[in-house]
Amino acid sequence: MHISIIGSGNVATHLASGFVNAGHTIVQVISQNIKNAQELATKVNAKADNSVLNLSKQAQVVLLCVPDNQIERLANLLPKANYILLHTAGSISMDVLAGAAHFGVFYPLQSFSKKVPVNLAEVPFCLEANRPETLEIIKKLASELSHQIYFLNSNQRKQCHLAAVFANNFTNHMYTIAADILAEKNLPFELLQPLIFETAHKIKKTSPREAQTGPAKRNDSVVMQAHMKQLNSDKLEKLYRFVSNSIIDYNKDN
Amino acid sequence: MHISIIGSGNVATHLASGFVNAGHTIVQVISQNIKNAQELATKVNAKADNSVLNLSKQAQVVLLCVPDNQIERLANLLPKANYILLHTAGSISMDVLAGAAHFGVFYPLQSFSKKVPVNLAEVPFCLEANRPETLEIIKKLASELSHQIYFLNSNQRKQCHLAAVFANNFTNHMYTIAADILAEKNLPFELLQPLIFETAHKIKKTSPREAQTGPAKRNDSVVMQAHMKQLNSDKLEKLYRFVSNSIIDYNKDN
Repeated sequence: MHISIIGSGNVATHLASGFVNAGHTIVQVISQNIKNAQELATKVNAKADNSVLNLSKQAQVVLLCVPDNQIERLANLLPKANYILLHTAGSISMDVLAGAAHFGVFYPLQSFSKKVPVNLAEVPFCLEANRPETLEIIKKLASELSHQIYFLNSNQRKQCHLAAVFANNFTNHMYTIAADILAEKNLPFELLQPLIFETAHKIKKTSPREAQTGPAKRNDSVVMQAHMKQLNSDKLEKLYRFVSNSIIDYNKDN
Repeated sequence: MHISIIGSGNVATHLASGFVNAGHTIVQVISQNIKNAQELATKVNAKADNSVLNLSKQAQVVLLCVPDNQIERLANLLPKANYILLHTAGSISMDVLAGAAHFGVFYPLQSFSKKVPVNLAEVPFCLEANRPETLEIIKKLASELSHQIYFLNSNQRKQCHLAAVFANNFTNHMYTIAADILAEKNLPFELLQPLIFETAHKIKKTSPREAQTGPAKRNDSVVMQAHMKQLNSDKLEKLYRFVSNSIIDYNKDN
């Protein structure tokens, strides 16, 4: 298929390469920042442009890979034609694209960084479309990139996105604090990497609820008090208390 | 070497098997719960006992794998002899073993479950001993199990243990909440597993501070407000706000 990509960030970069590897043609990369557009366009053998008003007439699929708050505005600016208009955002409703004849959502549930290669084949793609024929087309497109295809409505997708904030953003913040705690005593972060991998690995075999361990799970107030003293920071002490209490509550409630 | 293991839980189980695989002899497994002692003793071809008063005279190394609050009491009950007495706890000082002639700490920085196999070769072992000769002996012992040996004093080890609470216990709690958020809309937890692995994987290549993404990192209050509404739980809303504010603070401070 002939695909126009709007955006030149992490999602645009990984999906554009994935489509090219699957044999599709990226006809253009559009980004307000023409330098970024050119950089990605060169990689995927496409033309670069800096305005959605110049959308190529060749485009059969137009993929919006832009910040959430830009999706609706850019969708409304696009020249009308017979293409399928897709966005790639977890928390934005499909309906913001309803000005197009054919539209849908193509949401990869993964955290992308430009520098870190991702195996798209293992990324869950959450799909939604305004018509069954359109869903069929984007299902075929997604299944050329990944083995994991899910059909989710906008509500379910929003729920996934919220869950991902806990599983990814909040988890990564815990890693950051752990790294700082080690650095304070000149200890290397690599000390924790096997534990972090094991924590992520274990939940393939057992539910995270069953995998929970530690002083809060045991309600061991002696260790928790000692830890909070040791933290040497009011903010971190509060966070420690708050998350520990949440673990204790979860134990009680469930 | 001839090793007596006190305890029959997760750490005892994994270390006993590791020592046997490395060619050592477990002479006995001692646990108040004689059934558990027998179960592990059978696995590693050792005798079982239910009292530390019956410590074998053959023991060259005595390894305490018991809850933190039992270590000192059991150490003081043990008959005196020329063995090396070790505990395996992150947050307990080496000095609680000072009644023995030779003593030290043999702390594997990993979360063990009986059912889940662990590759000990990749587990960091944090060692400490009261004398250089003793440290040499336990260093040799640890290096037969693992490639990763660290020499940490009791203060540094306590700091590691605190960091591990954030990296493992708190992270696992975030997974639990994420699983519940998905379950609420009948969505499978497997949807998040690739994201969780990628989150754990990324920090091998980049620091967690640099890897941070999400609405709190962008200070995107529209998305955060929407998420808190969506959570449908006062407790989870508070937790979301608290962790998000911590991410925002970290961004400001650093």
